[in-house]
Amino acid sequence: MTTRPPAEVGMPVAEIDTPALVVDLDAYEHNLDLMAATLRGTAVRLRGHAKTHKCPTVALHQIARGAVGSCCQKVSEAEAMVDGGVRNVLVSNEIVDRRKIERLVALARRAEVLVCVDDPRNVDDLAAAARAAGVRLGVLVEIDVGNARCGVAPGEAAVALARHVAAQPGLRFAGLQAYYGRAQHINEVEKRRAAIETGIADVRHTVDLLKRQGLACELVSGAGTGSYRWEAASGVYNEVQAGSYCFMDVEYNLVEGFPREFRQSLFVLAAVMSRPVPERAVVDAGLKALSVDKGMPGVHGLAGVEFQRASDEHGVMKLEGAGQRLALGDRVWLVPGHCDPTINLYDWYVAVRGGRVEAIWPITARGAVL
Amino acid sequence: MTTRPPAEVGMPVAEIDTPALVVDLDAYEHNLDLMAATLRGTAVRLRGHAKTHKCPTVALHQIARGAVGSCCQKVSEAEAMVDGGVRNVLVSNEIVDRRKIERLVALARRAEVLVCVDDPRNVDDLAAAARAAGVRLGVLVEIDVGNARCGVAPGEAAVALARHVAAQPGLRFAGLQAYYGRAQHINEVEKRRAAIETGIADVRHTVDLLKRQGLACELVSGAGTGSYRWEAASGVYNEVQAGSYCFMDVEYNLVEGFPREFRQSLFVLAAVMSRPVPERAVVDAGLKALSVDKGMPGVHGLAGVEFQRASDEHGVMKLEGAGQRLALGDRVWLVPGHCDPTINLYDWYVAVRGGRVEAIWPITARGAVL
Repeated sequence: MTTRPPAEVGMPVAEIDTPALVVDLDAYEHNLDLMAATLRGTAVRLRGHAKTHKCPTVALHQIARGAVGSCCQKVSEAEAMVDGGVRNVLVSNEIVDRRKIERLVALARRAEVLVCVDDPRNVDDLAAAARAAGVRLGVLVEIDVGNARCGVAPGEAAVALARHVAAQPGLRFAGLQAYYGRAQHINEVEKRRAAIETGIADVRHTVDLLKRQGLACELVSGAGTGSYRWEAASGVYNEVQAGSYCFMDVEYNLVEGFPREFRQSLFVLAAVMSRPVPERAVVDAGLKALSVDKGMPGVHGLAGVEFQRASDEHGVMKLEGAGQRLALGDRVWLVPGHCDPTINLYDWYVAVRGGRVEAIWPITARGAVL
Repeated sequence: MTTRPPAEVGMPVAEIDTPALVVDLDAYEHNLDLMAATLRGTAVRLRGHAKTHKCPTVALHQIARGAVGSCCQKVSEAEAMVDGGVRNVLVSNEIVDRRKIERLVALARRAEVLVCVDDPRNVDDLAAAARAAGVRLGVLVEIDVGNARCGVAPGEAAVALARHVAAQPGLRFAGLQAYYGRAQHINEVEKRRAAIETGIADVRHTVDLLKRQGLACELVSGAGTGSYRWEAASGVYNEVQAGSYCFMDVEYNLVEGFPREFRQSLFVLAAVMSRPVPERAVVDAGLKALSVDKGMPGVHGLAGVEFQRASDEHGVMKLEGAGQRLALGDRVWLVPGHCDPTINLYDWYVAVRGGRVEAIWPITARGAVL
């Protein structure tokens, strides 16, 4: 259900209702510009991941800086992006359910639509639906380069599935999906690089095998905020699916190397609603305002204040030293532990600059799990 | 943003789109009836917690069985309940922000509204707003009986605050809020009982002190699914704020004693979207379909299938023995690890009975954090 926005355009930041999901526009634009500058002049394009931002406004900001389109995990997420003006969407996931496949091919009449596969019967179902709808669907074979989630094995298994795709009227073999999400968060840069390099080697080997079979990979898509420079420099990837780089979070701020070039632009603005004892404050943001799946949120710009635990609608803060000056009604800027599922709790971004609310962006793919 | 419902009334359960939040109506009604039967004929009434269900339909089912009204954590949650036909709401929380207080007193023109306090300046703000709006707001003094969150200390501190409330035109001292949420989940029954008994002793002492000051506690409200029988038998509590008992979850299913009388009625219905290797299946429900703050979901009725980890939109299942028969497209019934924040991810309950969808209930307080 759509909730009321917690602010109005033009309002001072101090008047934003809490809890609210707030974007620092200067930091956000820095992040978008940095990614665009890194990829500019290379053969690699950004396909920003909508599973992070859930918002066509953000997708269009990425596209205005050179992104080819959006990456989505769900058909409903892709529908929300196309409804919002995105003309090229890759569903970086397997779509198996019959009605979801029907919606996917219907969407292909309105935009360039790509989807991933890792199963030959699923390929048959996609092909039949595409033919019935009179569209030609672009298909990437997903390979598992270490994620231990979806995808066929790199090498011969991928080639066999790609041949099966290429043989189907209604489908177009478009290349490979190779995303190593688990490696993105290996904190030490050399260990992370080593993991990603094994993934890159798997991709290169598979692309070479495909080429020998006459199957060209128009797209090799993957890579996230923790590793995109390595995939971009590999000479074999030509799309980067980073999402978190726009906003960042506690988890990514711990990662060594280039993710640190991105600035924290996303905050949950909370307010102190109880101040029962000197060493404790309670804020109005708990499990329904912050996802704690990767740990507690950080506290921005306040010494001696630690977010200790979250219940449904409360955040309990431990106060020490100067932190004990925190008073009833005071605002606290929290850095989400994990940006993606935190954003998915909200209907609106409150975009701020220079102490004022500059824009309110609707998170139209919030809750889009179908 | 409101998403499309994943089902239609009359549809066979096998056709529900996934992931979906599904209520087994027989189990749900068993739970509602059991709670009503336990409290029937006593001086204790249920005030079901809307932070769990977020849905006026559920609140009205509780009220039809004798509940006095709803408990809410947020003003916006209370507004959603009143909009849906609930005539008596307790905001079991401190409301500090000026605009939230204005909305609270406005709501008091449409329904019986109670709120909690733990700070004298907040009492003054509530009183001023109530007088300005021409309403008389019922106020409970929140005491901390072991939760280490909000609330003043039991005893003299509570009495002092109650006197301050009672002295304000515009406010009515209505009693005590004493909720010991942290004790609800102590698994061993005797340890949990011991914790709750210390809370009950604190409440009894405070009620007696208040009485000596001429301050009658019309309401003593608190207690959850893990302890409600003890508070209900205490002779001092007269409202029970249980929420989870309607639905249950993995966390509560581990708790010894009477919570086990309630049946699991809430499920996330997911589907297998990838079946890459014999020992692994991937379902279409991850962090945006299931809150994992209290651990991974359970798998209902399938031997050899374990929900191992969740990423944004994927659930990775480990398969052993007979579990390896799980096939692409198969449905999996998941038991949420923690029901409240899981429900808050959805716009619709799909209520099923006898293999068919019987109703679709809108979760109108989904995302109501303001």
